[in-house]
Amino acid sequence: MQTIIYRPIGIIHTPFQEQVGVPIQPTAGRGLHGYLTLEPEYLPGLKDLAGFSHLLLLYHFHLSEGYSLQAQPYMDETPRGVFAMRAPRRPNPIGLSLVRLERIEGATLHFLDVDMVDGTPLLDIKPYVPFFRSTDEIRLGWLTGKSRAATTTHADDRFLTTE
Amino acid sequence: MQTIIYRPIGIIHTPFQEQVGVPIQPTAGRGLHGYLTLEPEYLPGLKDLAGFSHLLLLYHFHLSEGYSLQAQPYMDETPRGVFAMRAPRRPNPIGLSLVRLERIEGATLHFLDVDMVDGTPLLDIKPYVPFFRSTDEIRLGWLTGKSRAATTTHADDRFLTTE
Repeated sequence: MQTIIYRPIGIIHTPFQEQVGVPIQPTAGRGLHGYLTLEPEYLPGLKDLAGFSHLLLLYHFHLSEGYSLQAQPYMDETPRGVFAMRAPRRPNPIGLSLVRLERIEGATLHFLDVDMVDGTPLLDIKPYVPFFRSTDEIRLGWLTGKSRAATTTHADDRFLTTE
Repeated sequence: MQTIIYRPIGIIHTPFQEQVGVPIQPTAGRGLHGYLTLEPEYLPGLKDLAGFSHLLLLYHFHLSEGYSLQAQPYMDETPRGVFAMRAPRRPNPIGLSLVRLERIEGATLHFLDVDMVDGTPLLDIKPYVPFFRSTDEIRLGWLTGKSRAATTTHADDRFLTTE
């Protein structure tokens, strides 16, 4: 298949210098401050963004080497498929986080609820609009009864090793 | 900045042969069936996915040429910043959709609520876990009072032209 080439549009800055210790979900990083600096050329794209309370950040897991198609999640003792979890070591290591926008100062966006490593390359910013999402009954598969643990669990080193 | 290289892990198939007519949000494509075929090498990564009712699909807007940092959305008469909307003509044209998983047959995933063009390259699959998301008050910026229109609005040709 063809290759797809993206370029970072900015850099995400957080208190986490390495993957160990990073909250494994945004709600575990609740209230933690981070900011991103957008490349100046993209500044006009920020118009109207300040009105949104929540943003989806798409970014590249730059510290992730290779991938595992199955791995043991933090919240479980069974290896799970990589597409059934959010582990960074994915075939295309794209991360997705919901953050609360604090304020925009020029090309710098300040936000809360960080779960990325400092220096993470930013790929895209999208406004978060829950109305667009389905309101059907939601089944959580292997995460049923485990997702609450995500608010207190932090990353250890299990996704740092290469295959 | 460095370049980031991804490879499609599969192809998304939908009833839409071109961008014109595509629902502009998944809720507008409500009930419409699509499927994706995963490259066989990634099959082990699907383990445990069948237990989830909803999936997030990340994909490449392969028909999108160039980008506009500001454009007029379908639901508005004012040009808005590209990062404050979901338009496909983005600096990194990554799409994100929530779909309802119907069933998995080998390397084929059947799902509902499509809003992608047929032949769209798939980048990643993530399980949708709403508990991970914040429950704060949500502000919708320029979309306030307009997002309901997304359930009935379909794409015209405004994002097809290049700059």
